[in-house]
Amino acid sequence: MVAELISVGTEILLGNIVNTNSAYLAEQCALLGLSLYYQTVVGDNEERLAAVLETALERSDVVILTGGLGPTEDDITKEVAAKLLGLPLEEDPHTRELLEKRMKQYKGNNAQRRITKNNYKQALVPKGALVLDNPNGTAPGLILEKKGKTAVLLPGPPGEMIPLFKDEVFPWLRKKQPEIILSQMVKICGIGESQVAEEIGDLIRAQSNPTIAPYAKTGEVHLRITARGGSEKECRKLIKPVVRELKERFGKNIFATDEKKTLEEAVVDMLRDQKLTLSLAESCTGGAVAARIVNVPGASEVFTHGFVTYSNRAKRKFLGVKKSTLKTCGAVSEKCAREMARGCRFVSKSDISLSVTGLAGPDGGTKECPVGTVFMGCSYNDKIVAQEFHFSGSRARIREQAAAHALALLRDCMMEGITKKDK
Amino acid sequence: MVAELISVGTEILLGNIVNTNSAYLAEQCALLGLSLYYQTVVGDNEERLAAVLETALERSDVVILTGGLGPTEDDITKEVAAKLLGLPLEEDPHTRELLEKRMKQYKGNNAQRRITKNNYKQALVPKGALVLDNPNGTAPGLILEKKGKTAVLLPGPPGEMIPLFKDEVFPWLRKKQPEIILSQMVKICGIGESQVAEEIGDLIRAQSNPTIAPYAKTGEVHLRITARGGSEKECRKLIKPVVRELKERFGKNIFATDEKKTLEEAVVDMLRDQKLTLSLAESCTGGAVAARIVNVPGASEVFTHGFVTYSNRAKRKFLGVKKSTLKTCGAVSEKCAREMARGCRFVSKSDISLSVTGLAGPDGGTKECPVGTVFMGCSYNDKIVAQEFHFSGSRARIREQAAAHALALLRDCMMEGITKKDK
Repeated sequence: MVAELISVGTEILLGNIVNTNSAYLAEQCALLGLSLYYQTVVGDNEERLAAVLETALERSDVVILTGGLGPTEDDITKEVAAKLLGLPLEEDPHTRELLEKRMKQYKGNNAQRRITKNNYKQALVPKGALVLDNPNGTAPGLILEKKGKTAVLLPGPPGEMIPLFKDEVFPWLRKKQPEIILSQMVKICGIGESQVAEEIGDLIRAQSNPTIAPYAKTGEVHLRITARGGSEKECRKLIKPVVRELKERFGKNIFATDEKKTLEEAVVDMLRDQKLTLSLAESCTGGAVAARIVNVPGASEVFTHGFVTYSNRAKRKFLGVKKSTLKTCGAVSEKCAREMARGCRFVSKSDISLSVTGLAGPDGGTKECPVGTVFMGCSYNDKIVAQEFHFSGSRARIREQAAAHALALLRDCMMEGITKKDK
Repeated sequence: MVAELISVGTEILLGNIVNTNSAYLAEQCALLGLSLYYQTVVGDNEERLAAVLETALERSDVVILTGGLGPTEDDITKEVAAKLLGLPLEEDPHTRELLEKRMKQYKGNNAQRRITKNNYKQALVPKGALVLDNPNGTAPGLILEKKGKTAVLLPGPPGEMIPLFKDEVFPWLRKKQPEIILSQMVKICGIGESQVAEEIGDLIRAQSNPTIAPYAKTGEVHLRITARGGSEKECRKLIKPVVRELKERFGKNIFATDEKKTLEEAVVDMLRDQKLTLSLAESCTGGAVAARIVNVPGASEVFTHGFVTYSNRAKRKFLGVKKSTLKTCGAVSEKCAREMARGCRFVSKSDISLSVTGLAGPDGGTKECPVGTVFMGCSYNDKIVAQEFHFSGSRARIREQAAAHALALLRDCMMEGITKKDK
């Protein structure tokens, strides 16, 4: 089956936002074994959207459209698709009910909000459409079928689109596919993309079925192994030796062989399994490491205290960093990172503590301590491990990389085995 | 003039990399006043690329292609464009010279590299093309013109494409454009997208020049006003009354009229202007509010202390939340939010303190306190303001919305005017 992607919206067309939806959906199509030949971006313009969709439906079996399902007059994807496929719009009582419920919730948050007439537009669906409830927004997803062609309409915000695709569209499309495609992810941290690429160059050159595709993420490299076959069992048999080979090559740098498992989940799982508690002391990351840990449901069991000690005063007052350290070595120093980690572990009585202090820029860099310099400390058992990093890029990029490497460092330290603190 | 973008390459098509080139080029086209109606992604396939390019040249004046200029057999953009425009390929001596020089350099870095026959393919250029030297790679940029249509060919890697565009293509296109385009952003918080859309429905329906386009962000709505005219002055004159009208309609909900200013920047600016210090006590957001504040360069001047008090013990120990409050009202309560805010302000001696406590789920919800319930407290002057929110969506979405609304609440409180604490 041939699939095609259309992103609708002036925001993407004019470059106000980067089209991450298409990258996500393209990857998912590959997982489903769908061939993908074209992606198009078009603005909120009826005539041009209709022309693009018509072309797409001619040359592809499944067209996935994102965006343009909102309540405003600009949002025309549903209207254009319904018209093109000759399906009249009708109000869906179930969708209207959900919409009213949600709008009342919104109203509760803010007395200024009103349920507008526009909102009700979102309860209209093309006749015969499969309506996909959207738990994260007001616009439902829609699957329209006519004459062997399928149009899938999804809302544009990734926070709404991705769950809808994952939970509803993916299983629906999977059923339509005759061949089975199975893939497994191997997630690596602590090694750069180019080194990973070099170490698996031979495997990639020799690949046919299964294939290996590397994806670089911040502080991580993901390798997707994808097999095609007549049955799930056949696919698994093809994938197994490749995963084994990768485990041999990357060993403990592999933190997950599970599609969904994030680095923070791997860390929280390790803490939970070992019944350990964690505390964090962050300066330049400003809470970003804590925020990633708290991303994991149930993190409260293991993560007890977090400090964002952005000022020197807070580093001294709450973590007991010495005045002399800040004076002679500065806040961005190995000594400060060590004292932050130790102080954090002391006041929080946690089993392991991690500290991050660095210079995210854009200003303040010197020759000795350029922007991007980050020190981390990790206190556990009877020691404090410290590491120095040099990241590059914008302030946001440096902080994002620091947070990812902080999680990798935590994992590394826990690999050693941690003795629970005697409380 | 109408422009169009084509990204060539299987890597983007299959989602292995995100298409940041198109976002960059789209924004540049807007700056140049070029109308942009379509972006297409197509793989390294001769037939499909030729079809896409032909369509693009029919409907647009300038087609900018990125990718597919490398030395491999897969790289076919130049060949396809030359064939379609009827321009034979000829070797360009200057390009060949640069190529040989660069290949020798590469060879120095890596003994395995050889100058292959394929490499010389990059010295071939379509007859009459404007050749743009690429200081960051081996493939030159090319501008081909025929019958009033222009094809701009650029290499795919952003590190090569962006400098080539900025230094060569942008000035070249600017000369071709008679009209100037100017846009201004008006950013709103505290009102939902549909309400904003309704309140400006009349303006949007009546628009021609300037145009108004709304963009929904988490907890924010952005309105872009875009004018075309003979000069910058003329454009500004067209934009000014629209901005004035929007200010009248949305008043203090407008937090920025500057393209780049974020909500956290608006908050940090207010703190800085009023010489106030901020401290944060976060439970369910787990450091996400702090991380947004620290996003702003120079936040250290105003943001002194952050606590991620995810456990009840930490809420009691560091913020002085009463045992009885946690017992009778629970951690997700208005009373707890108030005590967190007060305690946070007390220990940090800051002028304003904000607390967030809520239930991000996915588990733990009850009828009285469903998942998505979030309480915030803000302590300043001689009072503590508290607000209750009900967000929906995934754990990540709930936390993202809570962080955005926390910033809006901070801004709201500061609008009242804050007396500096006597320290």
